[in-house]
Amino acid sequence: MTAEQVQVLIRAGVPMADDMDLRIDRLDERGALARVPFQAKLVRPGGTLSGPTIMALADAAMYAVVLGSLGRVEMAVTSSLNINFLAKPKPVDLIAEARILKLSRRQAVCEVSLFSAGEEGELVAHVTGTYALPL
Amino acid sequence: MTAEQVQVLIRAGVPMADDMDLRIDRLDERGALARVPFQAKLVRPGGTLSGPTIMALADAAMYAVVLGSLGRVEMAVTSSLNINFLAKPKPVDLIAEARILKLSRRQAVCEVSLFSAGEEGELVAHVTGTYALPL
Amino acid sequence: MTAEQVQVLIRAGVPMADDMDLRIDRLDERGALARVPFQAKLVRPGGTLSGPTIMALADAAMYAVVLGSLGRVEMAVTSSLNINFLAKPKPVDLIAEARILKLSRRQAVCEVSLFSAGEEGELVAHVTGTYALPL
Amino acid sequence: MTAEQVQVLIRAGVPMADDMDLRIDRLDERGALARVPFQAKLVRPGGTLSGPTIMALADAAMYAVVLGSLGRVEMAVTSSLNINFLAKPKPVDLIAEARILKLSRRQAVCEVSLFSAGEEGELVAHVTGTYALPL
Repeated sequence: MTAEQVQVLIRAGVPMADDMDLRIDRLDERGALARVPFQAKLVRPGGTLSGPTIMALADAAMYAVVLGSLGRVEMAVTSSLNINFLAKPKPVDLIAEARILKLSRRQAVCEVSLFSAGEEGELVAHVTGTYALPL
Repeated sequence: MTAEQVQVLIRAGVPMADDMDLRIDRLDERGALARVPFQAKLVRPGGTLSGPTIMALADAAMYAVVLGSLGRVEMAVTSSLNINFLAKPKPVDLIAEARILKLSRRQAVCEVSLFSAGEEGELVAHVTGTYALPL
Repeated sequence: MTAEQVQVLIRAGVPMADDMDLRIDRLDERGALARVPFQAKLVRPGGTLSGPTIMALADAAMYAVVLGSLGRVEMAVTSSLNINFLAKPKPVDLIAEARILKLSRRQAVCEVSLFSAGEEGELVAHVTGTYALPL
Repeated sequence: MTAEQVQVLIRAGVPMADDMDLRIDRLDERGALARVPFQAKLVRPGGTLSGPTIMALADAAMYAVVLGSLGRVEMAVTSSLNINFLAKPKPVDLIAEARILKLSRRQAVCEVSLFSAGEEGELVAHVTGTYALPL
């Protein structure tokens, strides 16, 4: 699947992703680049993007890289996610770069690096997660 | 802080929580019970509540239990979160029960059990997470 | 399998567990109690039991509860483990209480509470982990 | 501190590391390379290196990179560790490459990639972890 096809599929199937204006900017077999444009409604106290927004973007980026690698496995589901929040996001677009660490018949283990647009050198958060694959 | 005060504070500070109609049903020093009423806009492919909805509820329940224990520390921030998704949520309210495993000067380590309303015996997800506390 | 059978099986198959004098004190379908007697060779700087000792005990307790529940599935393997270290262990036996949060055909998700003998009220560490099951 | 100094310090303070013949092969401000030579006593059923061996090596590699970056902060302690086991290690040396994702006054968040010697392309395990720093 292409980046555009995955973006359409996710936004059609997950209203919250559509509401967040989720973008899949790039997708190939091993990596996905996903993005959430900054919006006031996505903040937490302090005015920065909320933790759940960051987790939602990371999860979407993992889903994208799984679909990019395996094709239309819509029923792949997150089975675990571990996140470390490392720095306050800036009030700009948030970007997630996901890659597959290991793909087996049962699951995909992914890693996601998240950063503010224009600040690639400083991680906002780091995620590892697993998607269970339909057998 | 009371359950009602925390609910008001979270929904005022986090538009996404307000949009999800987040409820804090119970709060005392060691535990919080939070709830998200089922809404079609919170689903993922398959029609069940999405992973990000589940993570957002768990995060809110941890925030509630921290505020319930320490008072109005609005700038407490999630520093890590680990979730295992265990079963598909039913198309009913999702409930999160959070408790503090360890409270130190620097951080609160919390555990959250999530289940579908009326199905307390079967976990939908299990979370551990840490909140960094303002010194 | 009984607690004694599992203890024998683990110590025969895992020399490090034998070297740590690992004990399985109790085992039934839903829970296991494992223990490492305090030994000077298991410490880290500061004189307390090392992190790897704590993780090894937690992993053994999970393995025990899986064997206790499913029988002799020796080739069950840890697929993930998440630990939060909460307090320094005392220079006494360390105890791990494991239970299964969710058992499916593919995996067992477990939770382990660790504490110093005689200090059941204060957690030394908290673990969640998954064991992949041979199909 | 140099790789050699850190190796000496860890093996003097942690008997289990000495027993595992832990090596610190390389160390600079941002990264550490640690190694455990294959030994029969470190196996689990199936003959491969045990999970606790892998976790112990990852923890030592994180400790090394923290000492390499901050100097002799012996009382830095692991506060959390998350591991995904990805492939069976080969019966050869196991190597851990650790780097710091984020260093703050309170803690260091690290990432560790583990692989069998000569098999750099295939991860055996992936770890993220945090070390709490003495204030």
